[in-house]
Amino acid sequence: MLNKSTTLDLAFQALADPTRRSILAQLTRGPTSVSKLAQPLGMSLPGVMQHLAVLESSGLVRSHKVGRVRTCRLEPRALSLAEQWINHRRIEWERHFDRLGEYLETMTKEGATHGDGK
Amino acid sequence: MLNKSTTLDLAFQALADPTRRSILAQLTRGPTSVSKLAQPLGMSLPGVMQHLAVLESSGLVRSHKVGRVRTCRLEPRALSLAEQWINHRRIEWERHFDRLGEYLETMTKEGATHGDGK
Repeated sequence: MLNKSTTLDLAFQALADPTRRSILAQLTRGPTSVSKLAQPLGMSLPGVMQHLAVLESSGLVRSHKVGRVRTCRLEPRALSLAEQWINHRRIEWERHFDRLGEYLETMTKEGATHGDGK
Repeated sequence: MLNKSTTLDLAFQALADPTRRSILAQLTRGPTSVSKLAQPLGMSLPGVMQHLAVLESSGLVRSHKVGRVRTCRLEPRALSLAEQWINHRRIEWERHFDRLGEYLETMTKEGATHGDGK
């Protein structure tokens, strides 16, 4: 089993390509066959298969084959982990600015008080 | 100026490395000098500079030099774009499951109605 850091490495790596993001966007609307995924991409089937291999390694996509048809589906867990990582950083960054704002407000008030006392 | 897709490519690429994520996590707590960023990473300064170059190219980090000290700060815009991209996909995926749930509920009810009529 992959650790959380490696899962994030692979998920972000998989997301760093417009074709793979386009495949993921298609899969948010439900499981889809490989040939149907390939149609709007204007790309050879082997090319699409390579991108799907990266998406499967990252855990963002799972696929299964019935007869000659391989169907892919989105696996939301790795996507959620990536979203959470960014979300937590943004929250921490906003907190820092809130604290900075409070500090500056206190300084301004103190400055005004000292000013009154002159 | 970079287009949105290239911005996302570079942001996700930059996020796909634990050292770079660690640097970003440090920067959420405010602007920091390069030497201070390097301390907890157990890495040579040139190594850290390479990671910072990737982060700067992606637009996730900006830096400026005063005298001999280079200070880095987080640029939240590219991080927000990446977060929004994942967030929109998750919402679309959840919508699909809501619709699927409604459809299955209707089918179950219709099945029960037909069953009553037997």
